[in-house]
Amino acid sequence: MKLHNFNSGPSILPQPVLTQAAEAIINYNNTGLSLLEIGHRTNWFQEILQEAKDGVKKLMDLDDQYEVLFLHGGATTQFMQVPMNLLDTNATAAYCDNGIWGNKAWKEAKHFGNVQVVADSSDRHYQYINKEFTVPADAAYLHITSNNTVEGTQWHSYPTTHIPLIADMSSDIFSRPTDFKKCDLIYAGAQKNMGAAGVNLVVVKKSILGKIARSIPTIMNYQKHIEAGSLMNTPPVFAVYVSMLTLRWVIEQGGLTEMGKRNLAKSTLLYNTIDALPIFNAPVAKEYRSEMNAVFFLNDAALEEPFLALCKQEGMIGVKGYRTVGGVRVSMYNALPIESVQIFCDLMHSFAQKHG
Amino acid sequence: MKLHNFNSGPSILPQPVLTQAAEAIINYNNTGLSLLEIGHRTNWFQEILQEAKDGVKKLMDLDDQYEVLFLHGGATTQFMQVPMNLLDTNATAAYCDNGIWGNKAWKEAKHFGNVQVVADSSDRHYQYINKEFTVPADAAYLHITSNNTVEGTQWHSYPTTHIPLIADMSSDIFSRPTDFKKCDLIYAGAQKNMGAAGVNLVVVKKSILGKIARSIPTIMNYQKHIEAGSLMNTPPVFAVYVSMLTLRWVIEQGGLTEMGKRNLAKSTLLYNTIDALPIFNAPVAKEYRSEMNAVFFLNDAALEEPFLALCKQEGMIGVKGYRTVGGVRVSMYNALPIESVQIFCDLMHSFAQKHG
Repeated sequence: MKLHNFNSGPSILPQPVLTQAAEAIINYNNTGLSLLEIGHRTNWFQEILQEAKDGVKKLMDLDDQYEVLFLHGGATTQFMQVPMNLLDTNATAAYCDNGIWGNKAWKEAKHFGNVQVVADSSDRHYQYINKEFTVPADAAYLHITSNNTVEGTQWHSYPTTHIPLIADMSSDIFSRPTDFKKCDLIYAGAQKNMGAAGVNLVVVKKSILGKIARSIPTIMNYQKHIEAGSLMNTPPVFAVYVSMLTLRWVIEQGGLTEMGKRNLAKSTLLYNTIDALPIFNAPVAKEYRSEMNAVFFLNDAALEEPFLALCKQEGMIGVKGYRTVGGVRVSMYNALPIESVQIFCDLMHSFAQKHG
Repeated sequence: MKLHNFNSGPSILPQPVLTQAAEAIINYNNTGLSLLEIGHRTNWFQEILQEAKDGVKKLMDLDDQYEVLFLHGGATTQFMQVPMNLLDTNATAAYCDNGIWGNKAWKEAKHFGNVQVVADSSDRHYQYINKEFTVPADAAYLHITSNNTVEGTQWHSYPTTHIPLIADMSSDIFSRPTDFKKCDLIYAGAQKNMGAAGVNLVVVKKSILGKIARSIPTIMNYQKHIEAGSLMNTPPVFAVYVSMLTLRWVIEQGGLTEMGKRNLAKSTLLYNTIDALPIFNAPVAKEYRSEMNAVFFLNDAALEEPFLALCKQEGMIGVKGYRTVGGVRVSMYNALPIESVQIFCDLMHSFAQKHG
C-alpha cells in the first residue's frame, strides 16, 4: 500500500535526499568510507558544512551581518540558549505566548532573567495570534513562534520591532518567501522542512551578541561557535549532511518561491475541503491558518475515531491531533506532494458522503 | 584499495551496523517509511530506545539504581551539564586534569561553582596519569576522563572515592569489562565505540540528583529527562538507532569480555611493534598506555612526514597525531579488525627496514 506521510515531525523528506543519505552511509562520495566513519575536520565534511551554510544564506537572502550555525539539539535547546546568550539577569525579555511551544520557550527564559508575556492567545486554546500588543522599549528582545505546529496557526507577517526579534521557525522554515531580515535570530530544529532530528539551525545577526554580563558555558555560547565555524566539538555529522541535501533539493526545485507556491496550493486544497464539508470544522480563522499544519475536528465527536481508523486503513500516516488538542492534524511540509493532499481530501469527501 | 580506518572519532563502525542503518533510511523494518520520517513517539522508536537502554544496562551490569539517557550533544555538552546538575554555586568539585579533554571539562565547571584540580599531569605533556592525589572530603564529586584520546593514556582501574565519581568514557566505553559500579555518572559521546556523532549517553545513579539549589533549565535537567524517559523533546532518532545497532552487535559478538580480548590483542600487537623498532618511540609508560589510542613518534622527526605519506598511500586512514601533539596516533576501537593492525605493523616493519 502506498503511504502518505502527514507526520508533524520528524516528517516526510524528499526521496532523493533519502536515497543519497543511505548511499553515504555505505560509501560516502566514493571515498570507500561511510559518512559515519569520517572525521569532522576532513575536507569532506567541511564541504558539506559549507554548502549547508551557503544554502541557508542563499535561501534567506542574508548578508554577512548574519552567521549560520548548525548546533546539537533541537528547538527546546534554543529555549534556554537564546536567553542564556541574550538576557541579562536583571533584564526583561518579551515573549508572545501563542502556542504550547512558545509557552515552553518563555518558561525556560525565566531561568535567566525576567519575562514579560506581551501577547497571549491561550484564552481561546491558542486558535489565533494576537495582532495588537505593546512591547516595552527596554526589553532585551521579542520572541515569537512563526508557526504553531500543534494548534495550526502561523504568523503571515512578522511584527516590526525596535528591539531584536527572535523567531522559532522550526515548523515553517523554508516553506515560503518571508521577511527573514526582520529577524535578528532565527532558530529551527531540522526535523520538519530541513532534515533529520538531531541538529539545530541558528542564524544570528552578530551585532546582537556579546552584550550581557553572564559567563556563558562554551558549548552554549553563540560567539564561540561563530569563532569555531560550527566546529567547536564534533557536530552531528549525519544530520548536517541530511540538512545540506534537503537545502540543495529546495534550491534545485526553485527555492522558496516554488515551495511557497506548492504549499499554498496544498493548504488551499485542504482548507477548502474542510470548509466545504459540514461534518468537519477548522477552528482557526482564515487569517491565522497555518500552511504547514491544518488542525480540524469532526462536528460529531463520535465520528473522530472511525475517521482516524479509515485514514490508518488507507495509509494516511500521522493525522491524529496532538495529545492535548485532539481532533485531526494534517502536516503538509515541503516534501509532501499535492497528490497526497488530494487523496486525503478524496477520503474526506467519501467519509462525509457516508456519514454526512 | 582496501582502506584501514584508524580514525580517532568519528571512527570505524561494524559493517552490519552500516548496512542496517542504510536500509533503515530507505525503508525502516518494512514499514514503508524511512527511519528519518517516523515520529519519535511511535512504538517503532520506543522499541529502538528501549533496546538501546537495555543494552547499556546489560553490558554495564547495572541495576535500577541507575538510569540510562540518550541526550542531544556530545561530551562537550556534558562538561557543562554535569556541574549544572551537581555543583552548587558555593560548592567545590574535584577534577583530574590528565588530558586536553579533562582540562576543558574543569574549565567549564568553573561557570557553575568552585573547582579544585586534584591531579594534573600537564607537567609531562599528559603522558601519564597521577596515581596519588587527595580529594577533599566535602567535594561535590570527582571527575575523571577514563581514556585520553589525544595523549593515548587510560585509567586501568578507577579511583575509590567516598564522593560521587563522574567519568567521561567517550573514547573507551564498552571496550572491556570495567568497574562501572564505581561510577555514579558515566557519559560518552557516541561517535567512537557506540555509534554516530550526535548523541550522548548518560548513565546516572538517581540518588546523586536533586541535591543542589540551582534552577536548572529543563532541557539540561537529568531528573526531568528521567521523568520523560529520554523523550522530553525530539531525540536524535537516527543516532540513537545506530547506537542501538552497535550495542546489539557488541552483545552478539560476546559482550565486553570479547571486546576486551580483541582490544588487548590489537593494542599488544601494536605496542610490541613500536617497542621492537628503534626508529619509533611511544612516550607513554606501559602502565598508562591506552588500548584504544596509541600515540608514538619517529625518533628522527624528519621521517614523520614520509611515514605519514606512506600510510596514506597504503590506505591507512586517520593516523596523523592530534594537532597539538603531532606524531602518529593509531585508534583501535571495537570495530577495527586485528587484520588492520597487523597490516599497519607490517608497514612499520618495512618502513623501519628501509630507514632504520
